[in-house]
Amino acid sequence: MRALRYEGPSRGVVLAKAAAAPEPPPGEALIRPRRVAISSTDLAIARAGGPGGAPITLGHEFVGVVERVTPPVPPASGAASTRAVDDPRLLVGKRVVGSTSAVCGRCDLCRRGLSNHCRERTVLGVHGRDGCFADQFCLPIANLTVVPDQLDDDHAVFAEPLASALHASQQVRIEGRPYVTVLGDGAIALLCAQVMSRMNASVRVLGSSPSRMALCERWGVKHRPLEEAGRRADQDLVIVCTQATRGLALALELVRPRGTVLLKSGLSAGAGLDVPVDLTPIVTNEIEIVGSRCGRISEAITVLQRGTVDVVSLITRRSKLDDGERAMRLAEEPEQLKVVMDV
Amino acid sequence: MRALRYEGPSRGVVLAKAAAAPEPPPGEALIRPRRVAISSTDLAIARAGGPGGAPITLGHEFVGVVERVTPPVPPASGAASTRAVDDPRLLVGKRVVGSTSAVCGRCDLCRRGLSNHCRERTVLGVHGRDGCFADQFCLPIANLTVVPDQLDDDHAVFAEPLASALHASQQVRIEGRPYVTVLGDGAIALLCAQVMSRMNASVRVLGSSPSRMALCERWGVKHRPLEEAGRRADQDLVIVCTQATRGLALALELVRPRGTVLLKSGLSAGAGLDVPVDLTPIVTNEIEIVGSRCGRISEAITVLQRGTVDVVSLITRRSKLDDGERAMRLAEEPEQLKVVMDV
Repeated sequence: MRALRYEGPSRGVVLAKAAAAPEPPPGEALIRPRRVAISSTDLAIARAGGPGGAPITLGHEFVGVVERVTPPVPPASGAASTRAVDDPRLLVGKRVVGSTSAVCGRCDLCRRGLSNHCRERTVLGVHGRDGCFADQFCLPIANLTVVPDQLDDDHAVFAEPLASALHASQQVRIEGRPYVTVLGDGAIALLCAQVMSRMNASVRVLGSSPSRMALCERWGVKHRPLEEAGRRADQDLVIVCTQATRGLALALELVRPRGTVLLKSGLSAGAGLDVPVDLTPIVTNEIEIVGSRCGRISEAITVLQRGTVDVVSLITRRSKLDDGERAMRLAEEPEQLKVVMDV
Repeated sequence: MRALRYEGPSRGVVLAKAAAAPEPPPGEALIRPRRVAISSTDLAIARAGGPGGAPITLGHEFVGVVERVTPPVPPASGAASTRAVDDPRLLVGKRVVGSTSAVCGRCDLCRRGLSNHCRERTVLGVHGRDGCFADQFCLPIANLTVVPDQLDDDHAVFAEPLASALHASQQVRIEGRPYVTVLGDGAIALLCAQVMSRMNASVRVLGSSPSRMALCERWGVKHRPLEEAGRRADQDLVIVCTQATRGLALALELVRPRGTVLLKSGLSAGAGLDVPVDLTPIVTNEIEIVGSRCGRISEAITVLQRGTVDVVSLITRRSKLDDGERAMRLAEEPEQLKVVMDV
């Protein structure tokens, strides 16, 4: 089968034509992706490698169809239940999206309800688990959410990043009409901006792209050039969606005393995080910093059904898995927001 | 009058013998300190200067007697009320402690109840306001809390740092019996450890001093050498009372995913805060960082009256203002916990 793989620093990203087809272990499903999307995490791995090393098939944003399931072994105590359906075989043929972390269900963190942070987790296309930029891939049955018929692939493929933006909004307390600044105008930034704006926040996106300014205006979100930020320490919440260290330094100037800075940066953050930042304002102004990763896919599906967040406008280019190497290079261009590929 | 002043980088800390006696402006009290304590903030200013430059009379931890008050100007709308007594003249002759930030009561932060972060604030002995290491000093009447007769000076002089430790405990959510690590075993660290331990936390102090280990044992608090920390990412809360950047790096290894790191570092934190720290774990493990400064003096007085926190054992040396220059050098010695001076 075909698989778009990161082969290490020297070979980079390569479309393998005869990769071995995966075999779902007990409790997992074999999925054939229909449409996938390239995220900044994929690009970061392509540039500098991921936490799990190489080689690895890239990709974790997908909508696909379940081809086969391997039923779980008889339930051990404390085992995770299958979220999607009672009988996992009923999933076969269904269109699904999925959360990316495959968890053990047994470690201290899983047992206390923090399985997103499972100590033994593998992460689709990122760490220890081949991703969805392939003809087939595996994911635990418990990770899957069935996509309602009325939601097309262009919407469903945004379930993962939208879940991440929704999760961010749930990590902070929103009261009254807070002033929120989103640093950056990439896909996650624009999803966060829309979600926060729907929560009655006065949202301002600090970015650099004129085309995204038009999108923001359509959503009732302000869009300002980064240089016009104004260091007034008057924002209730700053969401950092740019390279995290530089973003944090700016956020500490923008946020009000006792305000919150939410670090919403994926793997790409890892690259330059050792840039020195003066952390004194955290103490002096009693600022709260919150790190934010992924959210609940099923909530994203609910919001997508409601139609209150515009995701399809974020697609700036369509490609195909066969052209995956070029699509990855394309996605690096600053004018690209979201590049999707048909598999 | 006498005043222990920081005179700038070249002259350092000097005991002035004929400093000008202060005159309380409207709304302020003239206070004669009885006992004062040297804090790490005083030492940091003596080493590297404070945010407001030099010269400045040092000191912000005190218990003293009100000698005179200048009544406030007729109340403007939104003006802060006098917290201590209705008629400020009744304060004269009373023994008081006080919060250190003198605020404007008019800026956006004061108006929204964040006057601790007043944009126009001066801070006793730190920024724009001469401190309490002198025969007399001024503080707004609204900052003062009368000390009950049964509380002696050795207890009352700890009102400010204890308020700071209590404030830290109120900034975090404590449920069940959380695992708390306090980094450092200085005075603030030991106050935080006691306060958290009284809140049912399982508290571990990571420090280096054997004599403080004995104190901790008496309080039912574990005390371990820093080297035996164990980087297991299993602590619910880590309170950083050491130099903040290095402490933050260690805290990010100790705290569990979705746990909290509280940065409880004073001015001294400013010194080396540009040391690079890899902030990736904040995002990956969704850690919350909270900065923490000062608390409510009146609450500290209540706790001191209750007698549940041992403060007097923290006094390792007694000195006098006349010997203030030497007392400041003494306080730098690693075996000193709290050096107090009679004025």
